[in-house]
Amino acid sequence: MSERLSRKEFLDATARTAIGVSIGALGGSLLASGGDQARQEPILAKAAAQGFPWPWPYVALDPEDLRKRGHKFYYDGGCCYGAFQAVVSALGEKLGEPFTLVPPQMMYFGGGGGAGWGTLCGALNGAAAAISLVVDRSNASSIISELFGWYTTALFPSDKSNEYAVQKAFFVNRNDKPLMQTASSTPLCHGSVSKWCTESRYKASAPERAERCARLTGDTVARAVEMLNAYQSGAFKAAFTPVKAVSECMSCHDATYGHVLSSTKMDCRQCHNDTWDHLW
Amino acid sequence: MSERLSRKEFLDATARTAIGVSIGALGGSLLASGGDQARQEPILAKAAAQGFPWPWPYVALDPEDLRKRGHKFYYDGGCCYGAFQAVVSALGEKLGEPFTLVPPQMMYFGGGGGAGWGTLCGALNGAAAAISLVVDRSNASSIISELFGWYTTALFPSDKSNEYAVQKAFFVNRNDKPLMQTASSTPLCHGSVSKWCTESRYKASAPERAERCARLTGDTVARAVEMLNAYQSGAFKAAFTPVKAVSECMSCHDATYGHVLSSTKMDCRQCHNDTWDHLW
Repeated sequence: MSERLSRKEFLDATARTAIGVSIGALGGSLLASGGDQARQEPILAKAAAQGFPWPWPYVALDPEDLRKRGHKFYYDGGCCYGAFQAVVSALGEKLGEPFTLVPPQMMYFGGGGGAGWGTLCGALNGAAAAISLVVDRSNASSIISELFGWYTTALFPSDKSNEYAVQKAFFVNRNDKPLMQTASSTPLCHGSVSKWCTESRYKASAPERAERCARLTGDTVARAVEMLNAYQSGAFKAAFTPVKAVSECMSCHDATYGHVLSSTKMDCRQCHNDTWDHLW
Repeated sequence: MSERLSRKEFLDATARTAIGVSIGALGGSLLASGGDQARQEPILAKAAAQGFPWPWPYVALDPEDLRKRGHKFYYDGGCCYGAFQAVVSALGEKLGEPFTLVPPQMMYFGGGGGAGWGTLCGALNGAAAAISLVVDRSNASSIISELFGWYTTALFPSDKSNEYAVQKAFFVNRNDKPLMQTASSTPLCHGSVSKWCTESRYKASAPERAERCARLTGDTVARAVEMLNAYQSGAFKAAFTPVKAVSECMSCHDATYGHVLSSTKMDCRQCHNDTWDHLW
């Protein structure tokens, strides 16, 4: 195995991969059987495996810088990309690799609650993926659940985001008005956007709604790094508990005696309003 | 800038990053000001930027191999990790880098619909992230929206997954019984799991429910690569349209004259059953 890898060799190896892809696209599977791949893999894959153990390193980030990054990157690629890239770009600037190797475009899809479906808010999805790069599974789950819980009660856009807009302090300044604030009550894009649109009387397609979600993306990622900073310094404490309705509903609906069986941390009553009369 | 990077230099650079992280963790920001980082970044980051342009390459994958991978990786790290790692590991085996550089653990968080919240099904979330590694934004969005739509009507577990289980043909064989099949009607974990649990009479905490979601993860990622294969060969056609209720509801609810304003592709009536009487 070659111990040395010149830039030319690296680029040659990349070119070989590209050729291999074309061959693969024609139905062959030449790469899987060895050949050129066998020559390039030992150097790169081994170095990578030794060099970037997961979770990746984290250094404390400035929540206000992240609020501005999230807002800016929203306009580059939507809420999910925006939140993810805010964290990854900030860590990439401080630490370089491996953060510079991750294509943030992989999170484009989360915008509009997942290809426009209105499911999980993309800012939460992107922030959660970024948190999961730098925190072990169990602690990441605690932090992310806490972030989801915080999101359901937070006012979006935050006072800070509205102030930045008025002061033209964001990196992108498309709207210098404070925007109406609403608490989303749910981590779902659909509920979050619909509530704000209804109260502010803007359509989902309005530029004001986009600006609201840009500010929300910054707010969410700022809160995420506040939690990451606290976790790193040993000060993070999970405090969120689902609304009382969840535990009350689950006292029957997580049982086996003839009920609809379920599992969630979302407020049951937001969707199951037809069943309010059976308990409330 | 050095044109050559030996394995020793690579590992030395990695060690410097590790030291830098420790310094950063103590509150300093030495790396950001240059120093060692300035020496390592030009080699690695530039090579990465030149070597792995996004979208990353894709070669046709075998859906049945992916069905088994998704099922196995579910047991390693949950539905979201399972779907993501199924695609990334398969491409990593065929193409090596950059797929071997992505830590699949970054998708742990999507299990249980996002840290147990019951939002977007993690198998969809993980598959969507993997699709987004290898397809441009616009086409990925079409493929992912189609996958979400397919998911809402598909029977989980599929006949194939149930057959594999009975034949003990999965990589992991914890349950060799065919499991009850349900159509989830929604891309949300909560609705998908609750419907299956209710009809099968298993609790969400039951091992049978886990096995159902392992099979579902395999089924979802198998369908995802069927779509990717079709896209690569030019045969992919988006066919999903939201249920008629969505367009009927949106004919008023995407307007500005006093209605609740909204945006989604999910079936409105699943949650807004209190409003059935005003139109249906």
